[in-house]
Amino acid sequence: MTDTPSRPQGVFCAALTPLDAALNPDHGAFAEHCHYLIAEGCDGIALLGTTGEANSFSTAERQALLETAVKAGIAPHRLLPGTGVVAIPETVALTRHALSLGVETIVMLPPFYYKGVTEDGLFAAYAAIVERIADPRLKVVLYHIPQMSAVPIPATVIERLLAAFPGTFVGIKDSSGDFANMEALAKRFPGFSVLAGADPLMLPLLRAGGAGCITATSNLVAADLAFVYRNHADPAKADAVEAAQARVVAARNRASRFAQMASLKAMTAQRTGNPGWERLRPPLLPLAAEERAALLAG
Amino acid sequence: MTDTPSRPQGVFCAALTPLDAALNPDHGAFAEHCHYLIAEGCDGIALLGTTGEANSFSTAERQALLETAVKAGIAPHRLLPGTGVVAIPETVALTRHALSLGVETIVMLPPFYYKGVTEDGLFAAYAAIVERIADPRLKVVLYHIPQMSAVPIPATVIERLLAAFPGTFVGIKDSSGDFANMEALAKRFPGFSVLAGADPLMLPLLRAGGAGCITATSNLVAADLAFVYRNHADPAKADAVEAAQARVVAARNRASRFAQMASLKAMTAQRTGNPGWERLRPPLLPLAAEERAALLAG
Repeated sequence: MTDTPSRPQGVFCAALTPLDAALNPDHGAFAEHCHYLIAEGCDGIALLGTTGEANSFSTAERQALLETAVKAGIAPHRLLPGTGVVAIPETVALTRHALSLGVETIVMLPPFYYKGVTEDGLFAAYAAIVERIADPRLKVVLYHIPQMSAVPIPATVIERLLAAFPGTFVGIKDSSGDFANMEALAKRFPGFSVLAGADPLMLPLLRAGGAGCITATSNLVAADLAFVYRNHADPAKADAVEAAQARVVAARNRASRFAQMASLKAMTAQRTGNPGWERLRPPLLPLAAEERAALLAG
Repeated sequence: MTDTPSRPQGVFCAALTPLDAALNPDHGAFAEHCHYLIAEGCDGIALLGTTGEANSFSTAERQALLETAVKAGIAPHRLLPGTGVVAIPETVALTRHALSLGVETIVMLPPFYYKGVTEDGLFAAYAAIVERIADPRLKVVLYHIPQMSAVPIPATVIERLLAAFPGTFVGIKDSSGDFANMEALAKRFPGFSVLAGADPLMLPLLRAGGAGCITATSNLVAADLAFVYRNHADPAKADAVEAAQARVVAARNRASRFAQMASLKAMTAQRTGNPGWERLRPPLLPLAAEERAALLAG
């Protein structure tokens, strides 16, 4: 792949995963959604993340979803699947599977069961994973989402990983919501892609040296986010950028009034006319009827 | 199995898992450890729990460890493996595998990636798991360890599960350290086994209607715990019970001075003369040299 970028930059959608009536992944609707996101202007698709309910799927289900995206014709360099799970051998297996499909950039949670792990332990885990994969094509985007993983990734660990494995750790998805952390990482690690995990923060982060975003609301407003990304530095388009950003912020606020993933799915069901989109796998649940009505009336 | 108890009562060890030089499970040393624990007086072995590093092992590694315990001759009704993982299909697969070996009582974490899940969502997850397993032999011990899973199991959810699936949910391992919660559960759900997750709390919990314990320090002091369990209600043995309980508390305190699992492994290495016992899989790490020296000198 001569056009594979060396590090992710742009707007990446943390794609939702549609489910069928048995709560299994709906591969047809998923392929359609991937094409929709690219057509809307996403630079790529960060499938199988938190928003994609990856941690509710088995290893086999995750692999099948990635295969569907590739078979549907999405260029492998546009696919950034999540492959980080609790057990190192399974993180290694999922990552090797992605590489076997030509998918070289993956988003990797730390092992997230044990809490209060030391920085040495966190470094050792990522090091063990990279050493076991042993593939020079591998490009890892770290996934910092302490409110969900409860295992933060400190800058000191990033520094050690960059030094120990040059060219392998290419960026971080920072979903902490802590803008000061994103700014500090962008400043401290030039050439390392700091990607905002919240849509409204992409624009300020781009101005602070960030590389783009991997976000949930881009399931709904990818075109606006892509416009902001491509034109934010053009003074002639300042008004249009501000207007697009305002729509991004409004969509994010709308989707955050009730449970976010259920809201995004309800809004996608409305957009596509496919009510099946509303399903989630437990412990996540669809919106209650009155929440759904309030959201979709808005 | 005519002697299968309908619900777990007694002292169950959250067994450590030894690793070989490549950090893979050492099956020979594991089988030996299982026999040691039974010989010391454990009523059973809660293998593949937090202390057993289960969440650092793949599905295949977990299944192989359980098979080793069965093949080593530990009676299946004495084995209480952990089978709860983040994705429902894999929890179902691990539990069915246990049932296929005649192991009917399992310890089940809730799906623990998504945080802040609703009680409806938590109930729906356990219900979906039990319905998919669809095996009347199944007996589930809920696993409440909010400091690690970050997904607590409230009494209201237990009540709903007991009502919806009579005979299936037979107990809870409460590792919260919150004795008031254990007492309240024992009072509210008679016939439901409330098992202390911390060794020193077994004795007071037995006096409050609890059923025993599933604990980490029992890797070291199973004989004392078993003595406390069997004799705590015998006034003639009050002094001996208090002495055994004091040794349990001392061992727990000693193992908690530094990282607990690494300490338990270092102490087991000392007991067995097998230094391989000190290994842990990242992100967990063995004790630093000076910690190890301080611990083992004590």
